[in-house]
Amino acid sequence: MTSPLQLALLLLALGFSRGLQHHYPDQADQVDGEAELELVAEPSKFGSLWPLPQKVKLSAVSLKLTGVSFQIADAKGSSAGSGCSLLQDAYRRYYEYVFGGAKRQQQPGKGRRAAGPAVLTELQVWITSPDPECDGYPGVASDESYELTVDQPYAVLKAPKVWGALHGLETFSQLVYEDEYGVKSINSTTISDFPRFAHRGILLDSARHFLPIKVILANLETMAMNKLNVFHWHITDDQSFPYLSRTFPQLSQQGAYHPYTHVYTPADVKMVVEFGRLRGIRVIPEFDTPGHTQSWGKGQTDLLTPCYSGSKPSGSFGPVNPILNTTYDFMSQFFKEISTVFPDAYVHLGGDEVDFSCWKSNPDIQTFMDQQGFGKDFSKLESFYIQKLLNIVATTQKGYMIWQEVFDNGVQLKPDAVVHVWIGGGANDEMGKVTAAGYTTILSAPWYLDYISYAQDWQKYYKVEPLSFNGTEEQKKLVIGGEACLWGEYVDATNLTPRLWPRASAVAERLWSAADVTDINDTFNRLSVHRCRMVARGIPAQPLFSSYCPREYKGV
Amino acid sequence: MTSPLQLALLLLALGFSRGLQHHYPDQADQVDGEAELELVAEPSKFGSLWPLPQKVKLSAVSLKLTGVSFQIADAKGSSAGSGCSLLQDAYRRYYEYVFGGAKRQQQPGKGRRAAGPAVLTELQVWITSPDPECDGYPGVASDESYELTVDQPYAVLKAPKVWGALHGLETFSQLVYEDEYGVKSINSTTISDFPRFAHRGILLDSARHFLPIKVILANLETMAMNKLNVFHWHITDDQSFPYLSRTFPQLSQQGAYHPYTHVYTPADVKMVVEFGRLRGIRVIPEFDTPGHTQSWGKGQTDLLTPCYSGSKPSGSFGPVNPILNTTYDFMSQFFKEISTVFPDAYVHLGGDEVDFSCWKSNPDIQTFMDQQGFGKDFSKLESFYIQKLLNIVATTQKGYMIWQEVFDNGVQLKPDAVVHVWIGGGANDEMGKVTAAGYTTILSAPWYLDYISYAQDWQKYYKVEPLSFNGTEEQKKLVIGGEACLWGEYVDATNLTPRLWPRASAVAERLWSAADVTDINDTFNRLSVHRCRMVARGIPAQPLFSSYCPREYKGV
Repeated sequence: MTSPLQLALLLLALGFSRGLQHHYPDQADQVDGEAELELVAEPSKFGSLWPLPQKVKLSAVSLKLTGVSFQIADAKGSSAGSGCSLLQDAYRRYYEYVFGGAKRQQQPGKGRRAAGPAVLTELQVWITSPDPECDGYPGVASDESYELTVDQPYAVLKAPKVWGALHGLETFSQLVYEDEYGVKSINSTTISDFPRFAHRGILLDSARHFLPIKVILANLETMAMNKLNVFHWHITDDQSFPYLSRTFPQLSQQGAYHPYTHVYTPADVKMVVEFGRLRGIRVIPEFDTPGHTQSWGKGQTDLLTPCYSGSKPSGSFGPVNPILNTTYDFMSQFFKEISTVFPDAYVHLGGDEVDFSCWKSNPDIQTFMDQQGFGKDFSKLESFYIQKLLNIVATTQKGYMIWQEVFDNGVQLKPDAVVHVWIGGGANDEMGKVTAAGYTTILSAPWYLDYISYAQDWQKYYKVEPLSFNGTEEQKKLVIGGEACLWGEYVDATNLTPRLWPRASAVAERLWSAADVTDINDTFNRLSVHRCRMVARGIPAQPLFSSYCPREYKGV
Repeated sequence: MTSPLQLALLLLALGFSRGLQHHYPDQADQVDGEAELELVAEPSKFGSLWPLPQKVKLSAVSLKLTGVSFQIADAKGSSAGSGCSLLQDAYRRYYEYVFGGAKRQQQPGKGRRAAGPAVLTELQVWITSPDPECDGYPGVASDESYELTVDQPYAVLKAPKVWGALHGLETFSQLVYEDEYGVKSINSTTISDFPRFAHRGILLDSARHFLPIKVILANLETMAMNKLNVFHWHITDDQSFPYLSRTFPQLSQQGAYHPYTHVYTPADVKMVVEFGRLRGIRVIPEFDTPGHTQSWGKGQTDLLTPCYSGSKPSGSFGPVNPILNTTYDFMSQFFKEISTVFPDAYVHLGGDEVDFSCWKSNPDIQTFMDQQGFGKDFSKLESFYIQKLLNIVATTQKGYMIWQEVFDNGVQLKPDAVVHVWIGGGANDEMGKVTAAGYTTILSAPWYLDYISYAQDWQKYYKVEPLSFNGTEEQKKLVIGGEACLWGEYVDATNLTPRLWPRASAVAERLWSAADVTDINDTFNRLSVHRCRMVARGIPAQPLFSSYCPREYKGV
């Protein structure tokens, strides 16, 4: 909500230079091997647009907006009318963001008649496809494109589907600024926009620490401000099982940190899914097996492998027990429920970091290995389990995502499986291998945001180029996007939001904007104002560097 | 507010081990050179006491407390009565913390009569010295000791001065826990306590980012929960001058980020000082000169040195101009004001990181150097300035603290000057040198909390031993404490509080508890509960590791 002019005054006043940093004891040298660019604080010619649209034409012609006269409305030719509550909801949300909760005091008609020639009175939203998908769910193939023309007296936002319209509304709100008298203004502008990658996600982990619904919703809201469209919900893990299953309520009754205060009820999940849908965000749950399942074993007897100490059970348990039929009966029922609770076409099945030591200790497992002819290769047992699980999930009509180990171990995947690359060393090689095998893939390896470090690490995330691996054009097309992961070992409601934003905003722009958007100085200047906008909208996004926001965060 | 029993159940459920951590790409190895101990989650025999008192005797005898019957009251023999508003205020605060805002529904008399034999009905607070210092300010020589006896039917808190009583009240509140029925309970206990070091501080930086008063107060409140007693307010720096001076209002009018929304008015400062006083916290402002003063130059003409480019002024400015009489006139008036606005006996004068390049460029400075016979040694010019400044401040009857460079440059210091050691490499040597020269010193070098890193860096802060340098017993006595510094380049209201706590709690215990309190496993367990207590009290203190709190943070 800061004008380019205000920003200029703001930034030029700051003296951005390393010389002005204070008090660096010897640790400073260790902070970052790579030398940081000297960033020059100056207004970007692109204002505060984030992520940068594919095509932008800005003019110097400025129009005013008033809360009294301005309205967002369906265009006459739009296929979405007043019955499209997704859009109606979005109109209200963005009116609020643009005018900061100012109340309309006149009839819109009167205001419009009174408006002078340099006033923008309406944003017309025009859904051009016969099916606007108002009541649908976003998916990997959703059309998210839009075209925005801001001109007198109307601005027009055209999009084939509601998903593009949502992005266009965000872009429109980012074009509005206050002039020196506090008057809301917008420059005449033409924008044509679409995402570079279809899958632009955030992974949050509600198992290491329980995340209250309020925190999840606030971050979905912030995702929409950054045009991110996938919430990867790593909902369970060793530490806790907060998902309240209707079929197996004992799982959370026994496996959650607390069976009442630290669980997600069916109503909670529904709320998250719908809140996401209204913002064009897919909710993909991850139920990670066969490892990372200690908490599952508390409420489901015989699900986990009993570990042995010598010839006797030690009392502790390992990964899911892959040799019992009951395991697969359980998984069938469980994932049948999941397939109805989560409407997205995909579910994430995990499959990472399976520890073989417990399986090795168990004599029944050893016998089974012999029977199957697996020898001593426990990755074959792992694949045996995963293969059966994938076949089960395939019967629920869902696609699946899996962590890269499942691919590495040679498991037979469905053609539409998504392989999730996360291991830092050799991620480029892995991307090459996965796509050479014909699978779609998403990248997370360079975007583990739980790894924090001093100074501006967003630049490191920003400079990643997901298609930098060696491969053909066909292979590159199989890269459908990426996810920023904020694992929860050291993160809960107290620190999640400032740790995620604006660091994840850097990933958001990399995944949305054109590959050649790499001017780090311009990026710094746009991101500085974008982060202040998030703050003004109530999100405690942390600062990039010494600076201020016109409206500082009001919480503690 | 969690009982040791609840804690046990809580922690044992978590499976604290590195094996259960998730998803470490190759960066993980770089995170920390030192291998971390495997911490075992189990209740500490000291419950959740933080920092650990000097002497603690806990019994298994449990007493109940009810909000209806319990009261905190002056003991009959106390030298502080109902007129001691500092104590009356503290009684209310700690009643609230213990009973979570529960309302008293009966007369206390009735409740007490109805109380059964195993009920604690009163905490009597007994100030034993003739002058309780109710209306005074805490200082470096304040008596902070207290003795607490919890027994039936009364608990007694004895302290020579109110400062010890404040700490005792915090300790009392830390002894209260909930049994499995939610009943507030406390075990019969005897504690005798005093701080190991007199100066236990937090540095916050309101110049790189403006910190709203609300944030400062919340952190003073949290300091009291950790028995920290010095707020070092690094109030100005190159980036901004938010202090509204009555004598020189142009300083903030021109030098603040914004002259109205980003300044501290005299009323704001008064509120911070009084809020601190009521919690036994000294407020020591730092007005850092001659470097770190770019923002001063905006509102005070001729204060800074004009830099030259060849034979002409370049238009930019360097450190305070040390060769003009007007500089010293200004400093006299300015610090005269400061000496009345801030009641503490000390003011921090900075003196760090002076960049000589601008002085070198200026022909008038060169002439002055020649006249004074300084040759090319600009540290002599720096010392010349600082010496005059120290003499000015000495006339205001204040003591001063200075960063270590001032001592290193051989400036003549008052005997009561405090030298602040901050440079990481060689801090032990420096502590040796400063104390060998007979000066008191405080340590910050290992406690730069703005340097963040992955995982449990609080352990690194905790393991620091401030007296580990080579020196005599007499020298060691000159170490009066230390400060955790949270510089503000990357910190503002959005992320300050979770970044500071509980990392600063580690420093707090190191500075309060006996030198031999070094059991990192016990510390982990006490700190885990202490952090949940801070969260329950509304402070977004971040987690140590995967876990949960009975009452999670309610904000976003």
